[in-house]
Amino acid sequence: MSKINVGIIGFGTVGAGVVEVLTANREIIANRVGSEVAIQRIADLDLESDRGVAMDRDLLTRDAVEVINDPDIQIVVELMGGLDKAREFILRAMAQKKHVVTANKALLAEHGKEIFDAAREYGVTLGFEASVGGGIPIIGALKNGLSANHIHNCMGILNGTSNYILTRMTQDGLPYARVVQDAVDLGFAEDPPTLDVDGTDAAHKLTIITSMAFGEPIPFDAVYREGITALTPDDIRYAGEFGYSVKLLAITKELGDKVEARVHPAMIPKDHILANVNEAFNAIYIEGDFVGPNLYYGLGAGRKPTGSAVCSDIISLARRIHSGASGAIPALGYMRPPQAHIQVQPMDALTTPYYFRFSALDSPGVLSKISGILADYRISIASVMQKGREKKGSVPIVTLTHEAVEQDVQRAIALIDDLPVVTDRTVVIRVEDSPL
Amino acid sequence: MSKINVGIIGFGTVGAGVVEVLTANREIIANRVGSEVAIQRIADLDLESDRGVAMDRDLLTRDAVEVINDPDIQIVVELMGGLDKAREFILRAMAQKKHVVTANKALLAEHGKEIFDAAREYGVTLGFEASVGGGIPIIGALKNGLSANHIHNCMGILNGTSNYILTRMTQDGLPYARVVQDAVDLGFAEDPPTLDVDGTDAAHKLTIITSMAFGEPIPFDAVYREGITALTPDDIRYAGEFGYSVKLLAITKELGDKVEARVHPAMIPKDHILANVNEAFNAIYIEGDFVGPNLYYGLGAGRKPTGSAVCSDIISLARRIHSGASGAIPALGYMRPPQAHIQVQPMDALTTPYYFRFSALDSPGVLSKISGILADYRISIASVMQKGREKKGSVPIVTLTHEAVEQDVQRAIALIDDLPVVTDRTVVIRVEDSPL
Repeated sequence: MSKINVGIIGFGTVGAGVVEVLTANREIIANRVGSEVAIQRIADLDLESDRGVAMDRDLLTRDAVEVINDPDIQIVVELMGGLDKAREFILRAMAQKKHVVTANKALLAEHGKEIFDAAREYGVTLGFEASVGGGIPIIGALKNGLSANHIHNCMGILNGTSNYILTRMTQDGLPYARVVQDAVDLGFAEDPPTLDVDGTDAAHKLTIITSMAFGEPIPFDAVYREGITALTPDDIRYAGEFGYSVKLLAITKELGDKVEARVHPAMIPKDHILANVNEAFNAIYIEGDFVGPNLYYGLGAGRKPTGSAVCSDIISLARRIHSGASGAIPALGYMRPPQAHIQVQPMDALTTPYYFRFSALDSPGVLSKISGILADYRISIASVMQKGREKKGSVPIVTLTHEAVEQDVQRAIALIDDLPVVTDRTVVIRVEDSPL
Repeated sequence: MSKINVGIIGFGTVGAGVVEVLTANREIIANRVGSEVAIQRIADLDLESDRGVAMDRDLLTRDAVEVINDPDIQIVVELMGGLDKAREFILRAMAQKKHVVTANKALLAEHGKEIFDAAREYGVTLGFEASVGGGIPIIGALKNGLSANHIHNCMGILNGTSNYILTRMTQDGLPYARVVQDAVDLGFAEDPPTLDVDGTDAAHKLTIITSMAFGEPIPFDAVYREGITALTPDDIRYAGEFGYSVKLLAITKELGDKVEARVHPAMIPKDHILANVNEAFNAIYIEGDFVGPNLYYGLGAGRKPTGSAVCSDIISLARRIHSGASGAIPALGYMRPPQAHIQVQPMDALTTPYYFRFSALDSPGVLSKISGILADYRISIASVMQKGREKKGSVPIVTLTHEAVEQDVQRAIALIDDLPVVTDRTVVIRVEDSPL
């Protein structure tokens, strides 16, 4: 079998990881593919920096179009990140009948439909295993391993930086700002890690997972997102006293002809398998109608795991090329789009239990005022803990509710926060109580 | 695209599960494949029993050869189990250029090489996702998702029945025999569940995983196996006091040009992610050189999860047929076999820490006699707990060792068990201390 030639656009952290995998595991990859897999060209604007990998510097070019137009290249690997240029290069490569591999979750979340449609039109395959969960082969599981199932429910810890921060806040009782500073100082987090901690990165990944689970791209803007920046060690401790851990969860669920798609801090029972996913690890929990509950766990980021995922796509494409497959398996794993269109349910309609921490003056009648407002909005309290005095005579009142509706909750909390006896904004954390 | 026709041999629990999946999810499967996937024929000796699934009884035949020879059938699904007949039917189907899907772990473990070679010779693909881990797509992960890695290490809880029994023994402190009886009465275990509890079933699965991880079939007989029948709630409790859980683990590790492949009860740290896999769940923990640690978790048996896995193979094969791929991806995921042959290391050479529970008379000098023999065999004690009196003046002496060699351990324990002060056979549990 003849050699497979790969061209890489973007020689940053992940690009260097891909070069490292293809070099270090050249022999095992050749055995698995049936031929050599060679790097033919690497485009990057920076030709100088040392990426810490041994390579032939003659492969480097500043011109991505050279990679796209090289007739010897069968697989173009886009690792430059960003939206506009990456989108342009991927579409041009597909128009040249090149298969494409990308790790670009933002691009797939925001312009997925256009790219998936182009792949179909040009009969090429798009690999994007590295776009979600780093080295965890979750895209492959959704596309192949679970392909006989209706997917009911996916819940993931999809951002390693925020999971690391929450783990430190939980285990060491430290405040958010302090942990973030440590993480930045230690090189575990970007400075500032905005897209990690505000939920954007996890929402990008959730958009891709939701699209795969239900067979149709969903608009990124329809995904609710809320980050971890407002969480305090107190709330994490109180959650623990109720038997819950706090995680930044990305959740999608089937609800008849609608789906939920949301990213926010959530309380999950301590004995739920996701509650024990700590540090920078990612995990995705999936329920299918036949397979039941499944969990996938591993490192969700970093040069090596992401390099592993990119190269697994290269290997799959190389095998397809060698076996003479014409056409391609569409990106979302559906040869025909599903008949019924899916719609993302507005966040207002979410129904779930809630955790509230009210800050109120320690005076008679406060709890009755608050619970009166809650009752007006059909929010019933499951349990309440009154904690010791905080500051200036204000006390935290910590409650768990039964199932309530998001819109009711937002309205009730707005009224409660306007009460003169309420001294600070109420903390709201959604509870994810699905059994495992 | 034209219809894909499937023939099924064996209409037991899993066969009925496959019919149920293909019927209930007919539409989503057709969307994913691009055409209908139809059941053309089902062979079983029993044409009468009600399997609890709606189906056209005209599809049934008592003659498996009718399925194999039907020119309209592209995919033959072997679900009859057993060795000789299943082997014959699979080889005959491959000779007819049919792709084959099987859930038969015993057959693949004991005759894998012959079947993998036949698939290669006839240019057909063998799907066996259902042979390991029920619905967990672990075969796909090894074949595709982790294909860019050297696999260093796989550790699995691969038998749900024995994991259920150990969970009950651990959580309820009940003896083995009582838990097994309950499990049989409740229908959770076969009566008797011999191949589950003696390690054979897990060893079959480990043989397949090891072969995939290292690219070459290993002989089933080279896999060490030891079951859970000798475990007591006392040992599980003492293990807990040392900070460990007891699980029936299936372990394979790369050791230079050799590999370990062994199934036995093992102590793992309570905070290891595998320690928290309970009830009838399975999980497989894999370390690759680039991906790092990965874990896959789900239901390892049962009609629905196994049906899900079989049908995922059918869908993958149907997609390959539609895309006009010629030839096939070999069973172990290697187009060329690896150059260096792998060899399974004899169990005698295993090096690991050990747990011993000695039963000895409560008299002076006993510990010194025992530890003297251990020292003669280069076994050094890491910690020791002397527990309250058991029976007839005998006391349990519970120890953890530093790393020792299996052969030394077996010899030392044989001598210790011959001491007149030792009143019962020493319990030996291997400790799996690899960090997560």
